[in-house]
This record gives sequence, C-alpha cells and structure tokens, in this order.
Amino acid sequence: MNDKITKKIYPVDGVKISSVSSGMYKKIRLDLSIIEINSNSSVAGVFTKNKAKSPAVIISQKNLKKSNPKFLIVNAGNANAGTGKDGYNDVIKYCESLAKKGNCSIYDILVFSTGVIGEKIKVKNIVNSIPLLVKNLDANQWNAFSQSILTTDTENKIISKKFKIAGESVTITGVTKGSGMIMPNMATMLSFVATDVKIPKNQLSKILKDITKVSFNMITVDGDTSTNDSSILIATGKSKIIYNNLSNDDKNKFNNILKSIYIDLAKKIVKDGEGATKFVTIKVDKVSTFKVAKKIAMSVANSPLVKTALFAEDPNWGRILSAIGNVNTSVKDLSKIELRLGKILIYKNNKLNSKYNEKAAKKYLKNKNIEIYIKYNTGLFSGTVWTSDLSHEYININADYRS
Amino acid sequence: MNDKITKKIYPVDGVKISSVSSGMYKKIRLDLSIIEINSNSSVAGVFTKNKAKSPAVIISQKNLKKSNPKFLIVNAGNANAGTGKDGYNDVIKYCESLAKKGNCSIYDILVFSTGVIGEKIKVKNIVNSIPLLVKNLDANQWNAFSQSILTTDTENKIISKKFKIAGESVTITGVTKGSGMIMPNMATMLSFVATDVKIPKNQLSKILKDITKVSFNMITVDGDTSTNDSSILIATGKSKIIYNNLSNDDKNKFNNILKSIYIDLAKKIVKDGEGATKFVTIKVDKVSTFKVAKKIAMSVANSPLVKTALFAEDPNWGRILSAIGNVNTSVKDLSKIELRLGKILIYKNNKLNSKYNEKAAKKYLKNKNIEIYIKYNTGLFSGTVWTSDLSHEYININADYRS
Repeated sequence: MNDKITKKIYPVDGVKISSVSSGMYKKIRLDLSIIEINSNSSVAGVFTKNKAKSPAVIISQKNLKKSNPKFLIVNAGNANAGTGKDGYNDVIKYCESLAKKGNCSIYDILVFSTGVIGEKIKVKNIVNSIPLLVKNLDANQWNAFSQSILTTDTENKIISKKFKIAGESVTITGVTKGSGMIMPNMATMLSFVATDVKIPKNQLSKILKDITKVSFNMITVDGDTSTNDSSILIATGKSKIIYNNLSNDDKNKFNNILKSIYIDLAKKIVKDGEGATKFVTIKVDKVSTFKVAKKIAMSVANSPLVKTALFAEDPNWGRILSAIGNVNTSVKDLSKIELRLGKILIYKNNKLNSKYNEKAAKKYLKNKNIEIYIKYNTGLFSGTVWTSDLSHEYININADYRS
Repeated sequence: MNDKITKKIYPVDGVKISSVSSGMYKKIRLDLSIIEINSNSSVAGVFTKNKAKSPAVIISQKNLKKSNPKFLIVNAGNANAGTGKDGYNDVIKYCESLAKKGNCSIYDILVFSTGVIGEKIKVKNIVNSIPLLVKNLDANQWNAFSQSILTTDTENKIISKKFKIAGESVTITGVTKGSGMIMPNMATMLSFVATDVKIPKNQLSKILKDITKVSFNMITVDGDTSTNDSSILIATGKSKIIYNNLSNDDKNKFNNILKSIYIDLAKKIVKDGEGATKFVTIKVDKVSTFKVAKKIAMSVANSPLVKTALFAEDPNWGRILSAIGNVNTSVKDLSKIELRLGKILIYKNNKLNSKYNEKAAKKYLKNKNIEIYIKYNTGLFSGTVWTSDLSHEYININADYRS
C-alpha cells in the first residue's frame, strides 16, 4: 500500500554496509547484512518489552551497555526466538566469527534477527558468509540493506535526508522493516537510523527514547508485540556539527527532522501492514495525559470489529464508541466525547449529530487514508496512533506464513 | 459449530415468558420477549464494564438495586447504545407501556437490548407489541425466547436440568446469546438463567458473581467487550428447596451444577463465535494467582496471529510463546514454562522438546477441539479460557453486518 517513490539515498559518513544472500531465507534473496560503524560514533538502542526475547535482543542489550559497537549483524528469515540456550550459543558462534574477521571483540557486536519464531538458526550459513560481508563493506549499500531485512513486507522502507543545521550539511538515513506482529513496545520490529552529527551516547539514548514514544510505539497492525523488536540510532560524528554546541533552536530543528523521519518510517510499516487496504490515523484529543490518549487510540486501533468495518468501508461508528468505552481509564464520563470521521461530525453532546449523513460517511471511507478524531474535552493532552484495517489478506498471509 | 442435540427443556415454576415478532429485526422473526417473574423471587444481575453502556444497562442496574423485578423485556436487532438521552427516554416510554399493561411500576422492569449500536430503537413497534406479549405469557416458552434474542448467532443456546437436592426435585433452565463483540467483562452479551430454588438476593448475587468469573468472563471471540452485556439469574423459590437450609454438601452440589450450566452456556457462545472453525481451550497452570492465569490465557486467546495459525491448522507455537511474553505480569522468568498442544509436549526447560514431531502437531490441529496447555511452575493457581480461531468468515460477517 506504500506509495512507490524513488528518492535519493544519502550515505552517512562513518557507516559502511554489506548484504549477501546466505541461503537462510526460504527463497534466494539478500537475507544477511552487517553494518560497520566508525570508532568514534555513539550508538543508542531500544528493544522489545516482550518477555520471550530473542537471544539476539538479550545479547544486543548487554553489549550496548558495555561497549561502543563496531558491528551490527542482521538476518531475516529466522527470529532465533524461543530457542533458549541453544539459540544463545548459536549467536555467540557467529559473533566469534565476525569478531575474528572484523578485528574486534564479540562484545562490540549487536545482533538482530527477524522471521519465524522457534526454529534453529542456520549458523553455518552465517559463518560462511562473513568473509564476503566484511570484504564488501561500502557506504552506498543502504538500499540493499533495506531489502535484506524484509520478511512479509511487500516493499523496502527507507528514508534519507540531507539538510543544513547552523550552516553545515548533515545527513540522516534510516531503514525499517515490519508488516505483521506489529504493536511495538519500546521499538519496532527492526529499525536502523544513522546520522553524521556528533551526539554523546546518553543524549542519543534520550533522543531515541523520546522519539520512539511518538513514532514506533504509536503504531499497531495486529496488536501483537514481537519477540525481536529493536531500534538502533547511530551518530557517527563525521559531519562538522556537534549537537551539544548547537543553539536550542538548531537542536530543536534537528530533533524535529529526526522525529519526522521516525514517524514516516513507522507509517511505512502500517501502510505495508499485512493485508492493509486502509491507512488509519486515530487522534485522541483533549485528555488528561498522553498515556490516556494512547490507550484510547490503541483500543480503537486494535478492535477487530472497528478494523473489519473499515475494511468494509462501513461507517459503523457504534463499534468505535464501544472500543472507547472499553478503555480502563479514570475518565468515567463519556458524555463530553466528540467523534469525527475526517471532517464529518458524528457524535457530540451524548447523541448522534442531527446533521450526520451516513452516505457522506460511506463515501469518505472509500478513501485509502482515513482519519478518526476523538475529542474528550477533559484535559490538555493528545496522542495519535496509526493503524491498518483487518482484511481477508491478513488471514491469507498469516494462515500461509511458514508453510 | 454447536452440536445439534435437542434436549428436553424444563419450565421453571414462577417464570412465564412470551415472544413476538415486533418488526424490529431486519428480517421477520421473533425479536421481542418479556419474562414475568413470580413476586417472591430473588433476582441477581451482572453487567458490562464498558463505559459506553446502553441505557438498557443503566436502567436495569438502577432498578435491580431498588426493587424486586416483576418483568424483564428483551429485544434483538437494536442495542440502543450510543443513543444518549434520547435512547434513555425511549426505554422509559416502553417501560411505561409495559408497567401499565402488567400492573407494576416502571422500576419493576429490567431492560435488555442487543444488536446494532448507534441507531434509534423503534419504540412504537415495542409499545404496539406489549398487549400481545402480556396476554401470551406462558411457562413453556423458553425455546422461543432463546430464539428471539439472537443476532449474528447461528443457533439458539439453551440448557435445562432437573435434578434432586436433599431428596427434592429442582430445576435450572438458562439461555444465552452472543457470537461477536465477545469478551465479556462481568457478564456475557445476554444470559438469563432461572431456578426454582429459594435463594435470598444477596446470596444469589454472590453466587452469580463467583460463577461469572469462571464462566462468561473466561471466554473471548474477538477481544471486544460489548456495550450491552447483561447476565441475569432468577430464583423463584417455587420448589421445596430453601438454599440456606441445605447442608454444605448440598449447597456445593447445587452450586456446581449451576456453574456447569454457566460454563456450558459460555462455551456455546464460543462454539458459535463469528466464523469459528475451532473451539480452543487454553489452560494456564501453576501461576501465582487466578488473575495472572486469566491474563496470560487471554493474551494467547486474543492474539490474531495465534488465531490465524489455529485456523490454518499450523502448529506455529512461536506465536503462542510470543503472546505469553507480551503479558505484563510479575513473572519475569519464562525459562520454567512448559507448552503443550493437547498431549504433545512442545517446549520445556527453555527449549524445544527434542522429541517434538511437527507432523503429529499438525495432525492434532485438524481436530475441532484444540487444547493449549501452558504450565508456569511458579505458583499454585490455574485458569482456563475458551476461544475460537480467526477465519475468513469472521471478516465476512463483520464486514457485512448492518449492510
């Protein structure tokens, strides 16, 4: 469902990438990549809160605390989750191989896996690919990299921007993947973003956490949080810009551009959500906290009854009201709620808008991009969640995936 | 998906019913019923926790506190929810009509509605039907009643038992309805059970609450809690049995039979769940509390990825593990988990069972009745949730309902 627009991809000075077809994926295609990061870079990461974490996530979290990573290794086709001690040892094995070829410690490596859960990863295929991967490292491989990490995704998801801050040119380039098992909790399925600005690690971690809250953590396809969600932000410091020397205005400018990239990457996942025929924006406005707004929007976004009505282009707004009513928040009184589909006011003052025209609502739902607006009038905060509809194709994909 | 077995339905002394076709439902069929309850009866009820409650629920809750109901009035085809003040006034109007014909106060009436949300109820159709309804009251109308309350249900759901307690014959007969928007929170869509045992109101309320926790509150079809869920238990006291005079053993006997009826009614809803091709029992064992067991089982039951895998008869157990991992409980350590499909041990000691045979698991999933068993080994409590799979038919039904 994504718009197919080819745009220029800018390499990020200090980041080199290579991708190969290791034979791990069910068909022959790029499925294994490494990223080499310049030694003076800062790296920040956020990871899934699912307790059935992949060993890849456990190891990455541990190593990120200890050291400045030199390599990232990413495979698609096998999530190496639900594999316990064996899965852990498998990761160590191929990290040892990369550490040797790449002249670093195994603690300088972060590991990412995505694909089927519960199957043993093909260590041999990875180990055999490492010499070629290290040999082919190149700054201009972002596009190939974005392809190598896909699973049920129907297209690659990449955003690249070059712009000026304080008179100097800086670059941000990022990729992501994800289509099903999407309701990230702290991060998305996989996302890698790099910039050439110099930002200390602590600062970078804070920026990533803040931005994740309003981007990847605000999307849902099916309400299932994955075992492998990981989101990595790299700052190589190769440009002339040192974040801490910037004026507040310039810091804000950079943060806002970075945030818009994250939001756009997150939206790309929803647009390519399994079986998605609609891209749905749910804004909850005028509530007591951002958290409450998110909770309400997520309840609507994850309701299979709302999702199937959207698929059917049926303005069955009672299902939205019911999903709102199901949220366990301190707001007891729903009589102040306003409900809109796009600009169409449906419900206000505890009753149906007397001018509401169902035909107009039906026509509005024929659009690909749908907006649901819910105003509580009980506070000052708002939150926006992005989601997809629930179609036959979702069931086809998930009844077929694996087999 | 229900088994079609016709069994004898026993009337409950002290309860009379009549049903008509009022023209409220989208096609001509029984859609409106009243129940007259003997004046010395006790009545208990539990209702939805959805905040977008139907006026029917609000009025029933209020009246049940105030008085001993004489009449229940139940319609299918319109939930009269999301209708605000107008919807409330509509209920008052037809209650006044029933109060007049039935010689009681409007406060002696409980009201139940099920169907589309957000549409105005046809008060005139109800008012016009009331004389006939009052005239036709009869003890042997349970079957017609069970038909009159259905919406997307494909068959009526009724259970009736006659048995001896302390040497005397007692009867319990109950009906329920529900197929979609099913994850009851305190009650189901609609359920009405009557017994001729004499039980004081407080006691009856406690029994109903306790039983609801392990029956209707343990089922889910699509994770959506309705705006109209109501469950009513009537004790007419027309048999020779006075509950409070029973021995503890006899009390337990009665409670257990009543509980089994509630569980069977709840299971009937899941079996007739929208588009259901599987009836799935999820037992979570050896955890710290019943609440934790329910939370974990519900996470598995409501995962669309687990549900589509069950529909596809694909033993994709990694999705079950991931759904378990998503539950926010105090249990941090998943290494003690045991996972079984029926008798097939899949996962134990933090890894795949070395004897696990996927072919056998695939074969097992061809059954209509599937059991998922999850043992935590971290406590003494357990809980069982019943659910259905997620099929194309669910989407057909919910994309078509209304239109």
